[in-house]
Order: sequence, then structure tokens, then C-alpha cells
Amino acid sequence: MMAAVRAVELGKTAIAGASTGNAGTSLACACAYLGIDAYVFVPEQIPRAKLAQLLIYGATVIQVDGSYDQCFDLAAAACERWGWYSRNTAVNPVLSEGKKTAALEVCEQLDWQAPDTVFCAVGDGCVFGGLHKGFADAQRFGLIDLMPRLIGAQATGAAPLVAAFENDWPAIRPQGAETVADSIRVGVPRDQIKALRAARETGGGFVAVSDNDILRAQGRLAATTGLFVEPAAAAALAGAVAMRESGGLEEGERTVVLLTGHGLKDIDSAMKGVEASPIRVPPDLDAIAEKLDAARGRKWP
Amino acid sequence: MMAAVRAVELGKTAIAGASTGNAGTSLACACAYLGIDAYVFVPEQIPRAKLAQLLIYGATVIQVDGSYDQCFDLAAAACERWGWYSRNTAVNPVLSEGKKTAALEVCEQLDWQAPDTVFCAVGDGCVFGGLHKGFADAQRFGLIDLMPRLIGAQATGAAPLVAAFENDWPAIRPQGAETVADSIRVGVPRDQIKALRAARETGGGFVAVSDNDILRAQGRLAATTGLFVEPAAAAALAGAVAMRESGGLEEGERTVVLLTGHGLKDIDSAMKGVEASPIRVPPDLDAIAEKLDAARGRKWP
Repeated sequence: MMAAVRAVELGKTAIAGASTGNAGTSLACACAYLGIDAYVFVPEQIPRAKLAQLLIYGATVIQVDGSYDQCFDLAAAACERWGWYSRNTAVNPVLSEGKKTAALEVCEQLDWQAPDTVFCAVGDGCVFGGLHKGFADAQRFGLIDLMPRLIGAQATGAAPLVAAFENDWPAIRPQGAETVADSIRVGVPRDQIKALRAARETGGGFVAVSDNDILRAQGRLAATTGLFVEPAAAAALAGAVAMRESGGLEEGERTVVLLTGHGLKDIDSAMKGVEASPIRVPPDLDAIAEKLDAARGRKWP
Repeated sequence: MMAAVRAVELGKTAIAGASTGNAGTSLACACAYLGIDAYVFVPEQIPRAKLAQLLIYGATVIQVDGSYDQCFDLAAAACERWGWYSRNTAVNPVLSEGKKTAALEVCEQLDWQAPDTVFCAVGDGCVFGGLHKGFADAQRFGLIDLMPRLIGAQATGAAPLVAAFENDWPAIRPQGAETVADSIRVGVPRDQIKALRAARETGGGFVAVSDNDILRAQGRLAATTGLFVEPAAAAALAGAVAMRESGGLEEGERTVVLLTGHGLKDIDSAMKGVEASPIRVPPDLDAIAEKLDAARGRKWP
């Protein structure tokens, strides 16, 4: 929304960006509201629901036979060539201003007592870097006393920031990206500088979690709290669980886990982590009793 | 949520109800949070996303080879037989107390100036009847001066309340139910008494809208406001559009359209109303320019 509003301020009538889906639908939604054109570059493997959102909002959807990383470069080149306002992550400084509001909301909801630790899934690193800016702003203006340590969660199959952090590299080394969590399926995090800084300057770090752990966290969260999130969001929770199990998270720490996308955005992945299925029955109560017996392994009256 | 909380208050450990999907997912979500068992009876034709939500929340999903109307009777019989707390619409009085809060929120957001007219999609009539109770409570306690007229929107293929209202029947006559809007695909509205009363006592009424009008309203709403809703929710808007076109809605009336479900709950139906499709391109800017030319019928630089 921040980027779209900025585009209108600048007198632009078209705005473009690459997206695994969420940034693009947010952009398309804002552009529908503001009445300007949105061009969204998405990878081949985008979930259907995200595609549906983009189309119904009226965005021009350019689906590239390739990865998000390729979409990013193409969107950048297209903006240069056709004069569209660029919403590309890391290139557009306004984005951090939009993302940082999450940190301010966290502080506000905790009555201006900052948490000790914050977990957040990291793809490009824009949300993660924005969080850092938000907490830093809040601290600078005296709204909070302490800076939380920021922990970024990445999927094992797309973890360039984990590698850079663990090896103390100044920058990431590009790698492939394969994970069930499409929103963080990023091999070349474009906001890597801000992301690495967020972890290093706050005493935080990065943690890698497997797709299995992600799906398990997703199901566990839904079944115990009623919060149904997409896999990328669940990666943040999986990261917190992993750190708790490895002793990196103390009892009694004030911990916030940022849940960054709704589960309905990717039904197919959600169903991968669910073992239950509907009990199909004819419209007859005795038949239902029998099926319930079978499903539960016990007799119903 | 109200019903689930009430079940806990009563010491029940299981709660059941029939649902086209939304009431059931809400129930399953609340039960996951509260730690009690949910049994949800759903019709054969439930959209995949709604099924996914039910399963991931850990509900026992009983998918009946039949209609919502059959689910309702089965859920009622099951509650009787197995002592589950019944969340069935119309039978459980607590539901109206939950739904009425929508009316209170509308009044609050309009600074306690009630709107002149409120449109709401109607299946069973529970939300519609609850709105009536909410506005009536607000008026009784002096929070608002005037009662809005309440207009219920039904799909042409599932419009028993439209028929009952127009013919001044004391009750509905059961009929088949076919519409793209699954949440209001109801042939025997169980809350018909409250629904008819809501329209009759407020000088309101019912309006029937075609599936085409519903899908057109859904697309138009998304592309002009950024609000992506499910077909049933769009039926309320389609009803408002139809009444405006037929002269039943005056210029300058304060009108509220209740949007009752998110679009991501039924991607397949949403896509039926969308003519655009993604532009598939190889990862090459010149190729993208060509495809855009073809898609737009004009040359790009």
C-alpha cells in the first residue's frame, strides 16, 4: 500500500514488481483501490489462490516460466524500459516504511514493552529488515527501552541467509530454492544487506527449518489455536520450536512469532500436512454411526 | 464462537452442526482454540478451501452425500443421539446473539447513526435475523434513533424467502437449491421465521439475484475497491445494484452492504467471473513486450 500511494503521489499511472504472490496481491489490491495499473511478475509455481487474487483485482499478471529470482530481474528491466514505478523489494525504500509498522503494532499491543525475541520468516528479507527499522525507530524515539533480538527463519531448501550468517560472510552466495513455503522460495534475497544487519545488530540470527517441520508447525498451530496460516508463516513458528528444543530460547522469554500469510492462500500445501480426511457418508444416521466407529476404532451407541 | 463458549460453559466436550462451510469453519476454529471436539456435517459440494480449513482445525468432518438441508437434519439427529451440543442454526438461540454484533459494529462505525438500508445475503437467515436483533437492541437502548430497513439477497436458484415474502406466505415452501454462491445454497431456510420478520418489521424485503449478477458484482467489487469476497457475500452487493437500477434505492440513502465471506474460500467460483488470465512468458524482456502487445492490441516501445 505504501508503494502504491507513493506512485500516485509521483503522478505514476502504472506500478510493477516481482512477487511470489503475497507482495503482488497486496499491490494489486492497493492499485484496484487507487485506480492505477499493476503489472505483477510471478513465477511459474505460484499457488492458484494467489493467481486468482491477482486476476480478480485486475492486475496484469506476467507469469514467467522461471523462478522468483528471474521475475525480479525482469520486473526491474521492465520498469526501466517502460517507465513503470518499481515496487521491487530492496530497490524501493518506501517498502521498509510499510513493513516497519508491524514492529510498531507489536510494541503497541505489548503496551510499549518490547519483546525479548521476535521470529519472522525470511525470503527477500524485506519484512525482516522492516521490523528492524520499526523497532530501531521506536527505540530512538524513546517508545521502547530495549531492542529485541530478531531471528529469521528460512526453509532448509532456500537458506542463503542462514549460510551467510553462520559463516560470517559479508553477503549471501546465490543458491537454488526449493521449499513447500512458496512465499520464502527465494535463492537470492534482494534485501540481504538489511536482513543480515537486522540479525547481527540485534544479537539475533537465522535458523533453518525443514519442510516437514514447517507443515507440522502449521497443523499444530491451527489445531491448537485456531490460527490457520500459510507454510511460510508457519516457518517462523517452526524456527521458534527448533530454537526452544535446542536450548536457544529460555523459559519465560517474551517471544513474538510473526504470522505473515493466511492459510487459504495455499490449500494444496496445507493439505500435505494433514492426515485426516472427511468421512464420506450417505444421508443416514445409522450409516454415519458405523463410519464413525470405523474412523475412531470404537463403538458409538 | 458464541456457541462454542456456551458449550464449554455447559460442560460439554463435543459440539456439532451442519454447515455449507463458513459456520463450520468458524465452529472448528473456536473449538480448536477452546480444546473441545467439533463434528461438522457438510454437503457433498463444499468448496475445497472450506474443507481444508475444517480438517486443519482438527474437526471431524462428516461429508454427506446430499444437500445442506439433509446435513441439517442429520446433525440434529446426531446431537440428540450422542448428546453433543447443537450449534445448528435456528435451534440454538445463542447464534443470534453472536450474529447481532455485526449490527452493533455497523452502528458504532457510523458513529451511532444507523444506516437507512442494509443489504445482506440470506441462506438460513441466521445472520439476517441476528442483524435485526442487533439493530432492535440498539434502538431499544437508545443507541440509535431509527431502525434501518433490512433487505435480504438470495440467489435466483435458491430463493424460498423471496417467494414467501412476495406472496405474503406465513412460511416458506421448500424448494431445490442451485447457485454458484455455496454459502446461501439453502432450499429450506431454518431461520425463516426470524428472517421474514426482519424484512417485514423493518419495511425491508428480499431480492433475488442471478448467478451472473453475483459473479459480476464480485469482480467489480474486487477490481474497484480491493475487496475480494466470496460469491454469497457478493450477492448482497448484487442485490443493492439491482434495487438501485429498479428505482428501489434512492440517491443519498445511507446504505450498508454486509460482506460475509472472503473470496479465498472459493477460488473456483471466483475464477468463473474473471475473463483475464495470466500472460505466460519465457524469462526474456523482448518476448514479454511481444506478448503484452498481443494481449493489449497495441505496440509497446
